[in-house]
Amino acid sequence: MSQAVDLNCDMGEIFGAYHMGADDEVFPFITSTNIACGFHGGDPGVMRRTLARARELGVAPGAHPGLPDLIGFGRRVIEASAEEVYDMVVYQVGALAGFAAASGVRLQHVKAHGALYNMAAARPELSAAIARAVRDVDAGLVLFALSGSHMIPAGEAAGLATASEVFADRNYLNDGSLVPRGRPDAQVHDADAAVARAIRMVRDGIVTTVDGRDIPMRADTICIHGDGPHAAVFARRLRDGFRDAGIAVQAMGRR
Amino acid sequence: MSQAVDLNCDMGEIFGAYHMGADDEVFPFITSTNIACGFHGGDPGVMRRTLARARELGVAPGAHPGLPDLIGFGRRVIEASAEEVYDMVVYQVGALAGFAAASGVRLQHVKAHGALYNMAAARPELSAAIARAVRDVDAGLVLFALSGSHMIPAGEAAGLATASEVFADRNYLNDGSLVPRGRPDAQVHDADAAVARAIRMVRDGIVTTVDGRDIPMRADTICIHGDGPHAAVFARRLRDGFRDAGIAVQAMGRR
Amino acid sequence: MSQAVDLNCDMGEIFGAYHMGADDEVFPFITSTNIACGFHGGDPGVMRRTLARARELGVAPGAHPGLPDLIGFGRRVIEASAEEVYDMVVYQVGALAGFAAASGVRLQHVKAHGALYNMAAARPELSAAIARAVRDVDAGLVLFALSGSHMIPAGEAAGLATASEVFADRNYLNDGSLVPRGRPDAQVHDADAAVARAIRMVRDGIVTTVDGRDIPMRADTICIHGDGPHAAVFARRLRDGFRDAGIAVQAMGRR
Amino acid sequence: MSQAVDLNCDMGEIFGAYHMGADDEVFPFITSTNIACGFHGGDPGVMRRTLARARELGVAPGAHPGLPDLIGFGRRVIEASAEEVYDMVVYQVGALAGFAAASGVRLQHVKAHGALYNMAAARPELSAAIARAVRDVDAGLVLFALSGSHMIPAGEAAGLATASEVFADRNYLNDGSLVPRGRPDAQVHDADAAVARAIRMVRDGIVTTVDGRDIPMRADTICIHGDGPHAAVFARRLRDGFRDAGIAVQAMGRR
Repeated sequence: MSQAVDLNCDMGEIFGAYHMGADDEVFPFITSTNIACGFHGGDPGVMRRTLARARELGVAPGAHPGLPDLIGFGRRVIEASAEEVYDMVVYQVGALAGFAAASGVRLQHVKAHGALYNMAAARPELSAAIARAVRDVDAGLVLFALSGSHMIPAGEAAGLATASEVFADRNYLNDGSLVPRGRPDAQVHDADAAVARAIRMVRDGIVTTVDGRDIPMRADTICIHGDGPHAAVFARRLRDGFRDAGIAVQAMGRR
Repeated sequence: MSQAVDLNCDMGEIFGAYHMGADDEVFPFITSTNIACGFHGGDPGVMRRTLARARELGVAPGAHPGLPDLIGFGRRVIEASAEEVYDMVVYQVGALAGFAAASGVRLQHVKAHGALYNMAAARPELSAAIARAVRDVDAGLVLFALSGSHMIPAGEAAGLATASEVFADRNYLNDGSLVPRGRPDAQVHDADAAVARAIRMVRDGIVTTVDGRDIPMRADTICIHGDGPHAAVFARRLRDGFRDAGIAVQAMGRR
Repeated sequence: MSQAVDLNCDMGEIFGAYHMGADDEVFPFITSTNIACGFHGGDPGVMRRTLARARELGVAPGAHPGLPDLIGFGRRVIEASAEEVYDMVVYQVGALAGFAAASGVRLQHVKAHGALYNMAAARPELSAAIARAVRDVDAGLVLFALSGSHMIPAGEAAGLATASEVFADRNYLNDGSLVPRGRPDAQVHDADAAVARAIRMVRDGIVTTVDGRDIPMRADTICIHGDGPHAAVFARRLRDGFRDAGIAVQAMGRR
Repeated sequence: MSQAVDLNCDMGEIFGAYHMGADDEVFPFITSTNIACGFHGGDPGVMRRTLARARELGVAPGAHPGLPDLIGFGRRVIEASAEEVYDMVVYQVGALAGFAAASGVRLQHVKAHGALYNMAAARPELSAAIARAVRDVDAGLVLFALSGSHMIPAGEAAGLATASEVFADRNYLNDGSLVPRGRPDAQVHDADAAVARAIRMVRDGIVTTVDGRDIPMRADTICIHGDGPHAAVFARRLRDGFRDAGIAVQAMGRR
């Protein structure tokens, strides 16, 4: 199994005068940043500034396209066809790629946001649409997707490199899916336990489910939540844990 | 003076279920198309389909960024800083460039829309912001701008190739600016007269103002209005006129 | 059964420079108009002008609230909670009621638009949310809803008068629901047959389903589609048919 | 001169997942709240909840309509006609009035937001449009407007009651207008001085300008800024100051 891991975080979600997230605090601890592209959050100026900050800190930038639902922050399912999903991903990745070109960096990856991520995990034709959209804009981009979901083979089928994403602080069911947020056992609340789980997923490719079963779980990249006062604290603990375990923390890199 | 001219038209302004323009009718007669990018009109699917149609017909595609004002169709001045204008142009050109990459074409040019075009003509710092934005996304793009305005030197200062745009059916003042739309003599209503004026601007670089004075007016590209029942008819007459005058009608080409 | 019927039509769907519908042509033939409120279509100026026209012609105005999805014209399902639906209906009905107050008329009714109408027909808690929202803004409003759906009892439970809506040119299944649009037999293409069906639903409260079975179908109001070249023609035929059958065509009236 | 004063604050500016302001902290100290209506900030759910909180605390609610510019938070001038301004004010006031009806309260007032407030202060035809819009929706509403500006006579001409608004922490020019924000002396930084100025404006109707001249300045209501850590602290000091000066702090009341 891999002895290196990427830490990614959703960023650039400020919109106009509206602040969100704790980008400044979390940025020093991550290796990849998922930048909102204006549909669920983010605006052109924020996209430019977030890319500039990523470049300064050597964090690999990626696009974080979402559904066109600012009021719902891209968290509500919208009935969208594969064609509509393809188009909204090309548009948003292209827009961020414009800023990347303007600032002399290349995007590393694309990760769908919120309900779009979940819709893609549930509907194979949407996974395929996202993968094609990413490939068509830039075939060197890496597709970040839920570990074990059919988004991974969809990305591979489109000829993309993929990164299997796990959540250190979320519990898993026996089928490898996440325990739904509504359930009381959705979260891993103990930070030490979360760090230990993360290390095990990266080193051994195994996670223990809520039912106590060990299942395979590939972990190329770990999602750090970007809000809340504890985001930076937890990110630092993860980094310390990986360092002590001899696991390198580094960006995925373009293909 | 030039013995070739480009004919451009604003297109792709459909938004969702809302139709606008007569793209199908006008497309056969033009050599460059300015494609709306979603802020004042257009949507991701329309951008993709308009690019595909341009590619089929051999029409050179360009971005047509506008102000974020769908309800006002980008025709109302919004107080925006040079930085805001830079950001909105990078975003929109990047988004369309994403679709261009996906469909295997390269964008030829950028032309600002509506109030953004007029604001840039009036405020040099906005002209400079647009020129820098275009250059930073892709230095091979041609900047389409009002002939005689300071947008042309702003484009050149940014290192861009430029195309001086004229309007065959609009009257000019002695200072080379357009007669404001509110005035009764703003338009050239006679189609034969408009064609003759266009030929003279292209061949001789001269136009006669509303005051009867001949002034220099460089014409690299002529704007065809895309709506109204007569758009295609007038476009065809222009083409016939140029043919009879021995003037080639061809796209500007990337630099 | 009723010897009078209301004819309603969706109107005021213009948005800024974007035209839609054939309001002017259809207005003379209807008795109730459902006015878009800015979320899926319509804008403040169009709302004002549509109300003014309704007042001139003696057509009873109503609000036509939709999902906040202009690009999808409110036709795409958005995962929304009952609370979100309640809030979006109060907002939109209130906004139109502002224009009604300003023009000295009172709104007659509310009819949900597109996906919101369908979502409400499928999820009782959304029907209840819409009914409460309407009642809370103005308890004298009539709720227009799909005949036979649980939106009717939901309206009654909230203390509202209701109008059972049918579609003259749509086929019905044995359970009283509409044949889905995707099916080839969704539409009644023959205008004479459609008029005859409408008369029978109004006079006898019966419709023949696609399977040839007669089922009860209450018809207080008939939906006229507002677009397409034949909208006004069909509306006129319906009116002629009702006149010949001795059925009065008149608005529902407030309670 | 008046021995009572109203304290108003802009509130309800949260949009979806985006937080803004410190409504909970400031609410206990004010007597009138200006509630955003969804164009520059606020959303339907926030409007409902802010009204409910106002009702609980006995704070008089009002509408705070703004320009349709969420990304610019309504602070950027948009070239809008008097008719467009009329329509956007009717729409927004109507929407909030819908929630007011639903929660069994009546709106007390309307105050334009940001650039719309400033545009109205600069262009009499926009002041008149706002006043007519407010009057047409509900003639019992009080128009809050910049003290000494022509918005006050515009409101009176429309038959509305008006409240002259002053800013305790802003400096004034000799002509009674505010020192522009860009100038270093725009703000009154000393809280004690600001409180003393407020008391003098309310009790004596006089303020000392930046040039040291005493000019008349009617103060019916004082604007409290709702953001920043010191908003609630300053609001409390103002209240204490008025109490010690024997000036009642109370809402304007409907007419």
